[in-house]
Amino acid sequence: MEKLKLKLLYADLKSDLEIIEKELEKALNSSSHLLNDASLHLLQAGGKRIRPIFVLLGAKFGDYDIQQVKNVAVPLELIHMASLVHDDVIDNSDMRRGRETVKAQWNNRVAMYTGDFIFARALTYMTELDNQRLHQILAHTMVEICNGEVIQIEDKFIVDQSLKDYFRRIKRKTALLISSSCELGAVAAGATEKDARHLRRFGYFVGMSFQIIDDILDIMATDEELGKPAGSDLLQGNITLPILLALQDEAVRPYIEKVVAHEQLSEEDRQAMLKKLRKSPAIAEAKKVSDKYLQKALREIEQLPKHPTRKKLRDIALFMGKRKF
Amino acid sequence: MEKLKLKLLYADLKSDLEIIEKELEKALNSSSHLLNDASLHLLQAGGKRIRPIFVLLGAKFGDYDIQQVKNVAVPLELIHMASLVHDDVIDNSDMRRGRETVKAQWNNRVAMYTGDFIFARALTYMTELDNQRLHQILAHTMVEICNGEVIQIEDKFIVDQSLKDYFRRIKRKTALLISSSCELGAVAAGATEKDARHLRRFGYFVGMSFQIIDDILDIMATDEELGKPAGSDLLQGNITLPILLALQDEAVRPYIEKVVAHEQLSEEDRQAMLKKLRKSPAIAEAKKVSDKYLQKALREIEQLPKHPTRKKLRDIALFMGKRKF
Repeated sequence: MEKLKLKLLYADLKSDLEIIEKELEKALNSSSHLLNDASLHLLQAGGKRIRPIFVLLGAKFGDYDIQQVKNVAVPLELIHMASLVHDDVIDNSDMRRGRETVKAQWNNRVAMYTGDFIFARALTYMTELDNQRLHQILAHTMVEICNGEVIQIEDKFIVDQSLKDYFRRIKRKTALLISSSCELGAVAAGATEKDARHLRRFGYFVGMSFQIIDDILDIMATDEELGKPAGSDLLQGNITLPILLALQDEAVRPYIEKVVAHEQLSEEDRQAMLKKLRKSPAIAEAKKVSDKYLQKALREIEQLPKHPTRKKLRDIALFMGKRKF
Repeated sequence: MEKLKLKLLYADLKSDLEIIEKELEKALNSSSHLLNDASLHLLQAGGKRIRPIFVLLGAKFGDYDIQQVKNVAVPLELIHMASLVHDDVIDNSDMRRGRETVKAQWNNRVAMYTGDFIFARALTYMTELDNQRLHQILAHTMVEICNGEVIQIEDKFIVDQSLKDYFRRIKRKTALLISSSCELGAVAAGATEKDARHLRRFGYFVGMSFQIIDDILDIMATDEELGKPAGSDLLQGNITLPILLALQDEAVRPYIEKVVAHEQLSEEDRQAMLKKLRKSPAIAEAKKVSDKYLQKALREIEQLPKHPTRKKLRDIALFMGKRKF
């Protein structure tokens, strides 16, 4: 049912999302064949364009004008795309959404400068904006994403970390981009400061909820659904919430300790670990935390003025916080 | 003698350069130990802060105010520093100015995100600028540097390239940053459009002349002077002007062809190649090209209003275009 609502949401925004998609294509055009190939590869990998959707929805609380709104949606999505390419280098990921990553299809260097190129293009778009507040949000987002890269590496393979460390990481990795999306849309469309603030907080809570679900799915979903081996997060040394919670589980703990000690995990071991993990109470506990964030997000919506878009925000929040994969 | 003049120039600008240095330190401060270490490593490697000097000199043609001028000098130097860290990944360089590079002391990933972090900090500074022209110059510079990274990789190990390809590369790699430095200083200080244009062109020509000399010195200077093995450019596949010209020299060509065919060059071979290269007429020809650019730079100075800074621009141009290493 949630999926159906999302489809309706997409149908409503379809033509505006197409305008953004066209602009993204234009932005990634380059005189270099190699760069065009890598960018095209990224564009085709697509994704759900969740961030542009939030920008559009945020803008509905002001004077909605797609031509204005696209000028913040495009640089924000570019920043997101660039950070994904660089993330794959940091995580040494060969697959993303069932496709080879840029670093896998080419190599780390190509991924590095493809990301640089996309960051630079985002910047070019940003210079066209004449509202300094929009600049500041975008620049702050970019800075925090880069800081997030660092923290993510520093925290890798470290089991002796607090939940706070985890929350700090996913805030920068995911929640900030969604919260900035909502706020940028609102500010670009001239919404009130109060509404922009509620939208920002809404985006933050949705983002936190979404990332926790993502981290749970990395364990619960099948390799096929994920487009990469289940359990990849842990294998790459990323200690997620369900993993942190599963450290209390005697049946799972030995596997986690093996991985963080950089011992090779056989395919058999991975399967055995997943079996234990999937039955661990850690999964339900993590879901509870995600739900708490989702509820907070829904409460922010209540603070917004009555407007048909409120229901859409609710639908997308529920979809993102409840999805099965 | 040129060196003495440069020393006097530094003495004049010393206190303002110290203000910029302090601001760079502040900009690179981070909550991450790893990032602080890598940034400190870069700051200590220092360099001559050529770009900030050009910003300061450009600003002398307007209402010079160091507090304003530093706001463009800092992001520009940050963009330069970030691009160096990423360049070392692309060139697989372990040494720069006699020190280990970030990628050598840590690894490619750390170098990638250290660069990202510094780019992001540059961006934070840029958002504080209220003159859109300054933004556009900085963003354009960043975009072109990133484009330059790509072109540099695409042109690697390819001997079948024209002089135009080489000039296009060094424009983005070096000349653009110097030309932007001069222009940014001028625009930030409110110089006339005409003066800003002459300063930009001056910087471009100086930058071209400087990079050609740099490429010659990679062959002519000793390992000790360079702080890395002489001939590194070619060994990394970077086809520079003296190399392109030396392809006409039967005594040298076989060595170049061996390198671009990715054959291992023994230390003995490297020494033999350097010996031939250093005696090749290609060196004098390359110097001539550099000189031509230098003369063009000097002619731009003549177009600027009479001002004591004109002599300083001349001194620094001559120093950069004539230096022995």
